[in-house]
Amino acid sequence: MGIITLTTDLGHKDFYQAALKGSIISQFPTANLIDISHEIPPFDIQYAAFVLKNAYPYFPKKTVHLVGIDSVFNQDTRYLALQHNGHYFVGADNGIFSLILDGVPEEVVELNIIQDLKYLHFPLTDIFAKAACVLAKGGVLNDIGDPVTAIVDRTLVQPVVEKDSLRGSVVFIDSFGNVISNINKELFNKVQRSRNFVLYFRRNETIEQMSWHYNDVPEGEKLCLFGISNYLEIAINKGNASGLLGLNKGDILRVEFGK
Amino acid sequence: MGIITLTTDLGHKDFYQAALKGSIISQFPTANLIDISHEIPPFDIQYAAFVLKNAYPYFPKKTVHLVGIDSVFNQDTRYLALQHNGHYFVGADNGIFSLILDGVPEEVVELNIIQDLKYLHFPLTDIFAKAACVLAKGGVLNDIGDPVTAIVDRTLVQPVVEKDSLRGSVVFIDSFGNVISNINKELFNKVQRSRNFVLYFRRNETIEQMSWHYNDVPEGEKLCLFGISNYLEIAINKGNASGLLGLNKGDILRVEFGK
Amino acid sequence: MGIITLTTDLGHKDFYQAALKGSIISQFPTANLIDISHEIPPFDIQYAAFVLKNAYPYFPKKTVHLVGIDSVFNQDTRYLALQHNGHYFVGADNGIFSLILDGVPEEVVELNIIQDLKYLHFPLTDIFAKAACVLAKGGVLNDIGDPVTAIVDRTLVQPVVEKDSLRGSVVFIDSFGNVISNINKELFNKVQRSRNFVLYFRRNETIEQMSWHYNDVPEGEKLCLFGISNYLEIAINKGNASGLLGLNKGDILRVEFGK
Repeated sequence: MGIITLTTDLGHKDFYQAALKGSIISQFPTANLIDISHEIPPFDIQYAAFVLKNAYPYFPKKTVHLVGIDSVFNQDTRYLALQHNGHYFVGADNGIFSLILDGVPEEVVELNIIQDLKYLHFPLTDIFAKAACVLAKGGVLNDIGDPVTAIVDRTLVQPVVEKDSLRGSVVFIDSFGNVISNINKELFNKVQRSRNFVLYFRRNETIEQMSWHYNDVPEGEKLCLFGISNYLEIAINKGNASGLLGLNKGDILRVEFGK
Repeated sequence: MGIITLTTDLGHKDFYQAALKGSIISQFPTANLIDISHEIPPFDIQYAAFVLKNAYPYFPKKTVHLVGIDSVFNQDTRYLALQHNGHYFVGADNGIFSLILDGVPEEVVELNIIQDLKYLHFPLTDIFAKAACVLAKGGVLNDIGDPVTAIVDRTLVQPVVEKDSLRGSVVFIDSFGNVISNINKELFNKVQRSRNFVLYFRRNETIEQMSWHYNDVPEGEKLCLFGISNYLEIAINKGNASGLLGLNKGDILRVEFGK
Repeated sequence: MGIITLTTDLGHKDFYQAALKGSIISQFPTANLIDISHEIPPFDIQYAAFVLKNAYPYFPKKTVHLVGIDSVFNQDTRYLALQHNGHYFVGADNGIFSLILDGVPEEVVELNIIQDLKYLHFPLTDIFAKAACVLAKGGVLNDIGDPVTAIVDRTLVQPVVEKDSLRGSVVFIDSFGNVISNINKELFNKVQRSRNFVLYFRRNETIEQMSWHYNDVPEGEKLCLFGISNYLEIAINKGNASGLLGLNKGDILRVEFGK
């Protein structure tokens, strides 16, 4: 179907993302280009991974996801194309793919369509666009690269699980100020086993009720829920939880069960 | 023709708007997606209505306008699809449609394509996208909902009209800082009857001349005109009128005629 | 192929850029619309020119580039369409085209598709969109305008070239904080003649090495290189050079050779 999504830190004020689009359109005039985001904070691989990890499953199989972040050449750089779950991904082997994908990718190649990488100024147009177009036109990984067995792994800090408690941390603040943790619903349910819980955060803040919708509490009140991303989230109905509760990326959340 | 426009407060930094697009593309791969804006201030229905009200007439008939703002489920929520003026609209019955449309919509249905709404986490992908795709593919309102007779009405404060004066208020500040009121050209002309006028605002500011273009006065000088939106607007030639004149949303403007 | 790119200062918070897109889609439903940027600072012709000058060569020949900046009508305004290098451009004759194009455009017409310009409120939808659609559908310049011999010229300050030195200035700060000058690679090489160099800026800052990639120096260290734009650029590996080095648009850079 020729869908190529773009996830970059290039912003909208420079010519870089336009150059990327022009480069794709020149090679594949009927490509269906969809911006995931060009507003990833510069070089923030973890942020980009969180966004794409949650967005890509909404796209049809065979979609090609071009990831343009932290991809400047250096002598250790490998540029990759992957297939996982029926989706294709193209980008630098900087650890981002271990964060996006659940587990090891089904198929990986190191791109071999450019011989001498070290003179590349702009890998997004010079090599990623080319690889993405081949795949979006129906090509396969072997057309553009050589098989690779391992990719760079950047393990995220995982929640600490004990019999009656969970300790996780804040991994993402969305633009509404919702505070998203690394505790997913399956893990929570598994440890909870239908018991009551208390969620502790900041000094003395607690929440003891799981909401289903942001408006299950009165406007301006705090709540917790499993949001669109399926991770435990602290929010304020029509308010900015991060700002109002003083919660930031990296902050610790603790859940105690069955007391 | 398959055009779907998107108006939301989802921003470009999260995965939400990408998920919405992926969801549409998955159901309707050749949809022509056009962003009206994803930068509506969170939950600001009046802002979103002003933007879409002024943008939608530029699109062809049969375009489907998906409105994703303030649409979290609660027990009173209805999700609607409307036809008006040859355009389709899909969104929550939170009053926004009364602000967008001039008058009562020609046809309205309450969406019935999802049975149990209360488990929806993300109505934009789960129900709006589906409804929009049916309509964009050439379906009709009855395919996706049951007829409804009334929708939530949010009447905006209207200008106060007297024989020799008009009192309106600022409803929108655009990103150039132009100050847009709720006094439209027809009303102004009707009360003016070709007489002179004085526009009063702030403490002692006045404008007595109607401009046609922003550059009808020297750079840096204030003016008033009926802008692209057809509403009375206070501007500064190549300057930010809101900032420089201290005019904000809700501020009162007064026009006196024929003195 | 029907590609139309858009470069404007309209932002994403108002209805203006949506109106522009709707207007194009209404006239040419299969147009392939690509945003170069809508986040040009208001009225900043030089900024817009830098972005489009660097982006347009990535697009295929026959692409139509609509430039919507500083285009309000006044009695001296001419609206133009140009062909240069196989690309089409549409916009106001405010000097921007002399900045975008290297040299005199190959063909220029003054748009004649609207008779009475002075009542235009929004030239982007009323005349530029129309002209762009004619060209994107395969029309030629003579279909929409009358030949013109000269266009408004806005010469940029050029670097001062001496036998053993170059003095240029900062013309653009990108969103990563990279500091881009008006000294291009060809000029630099021509004066350098393989000699050593010292780049001076601010009070006492110097760089004596040319990098090829942003990461040729340790993270946090300054460097200079010829970037994607082919102009001499001062950067910090994974840092904001403009902020950290206090370099702003208009600041002077001096290069001395062969000492």
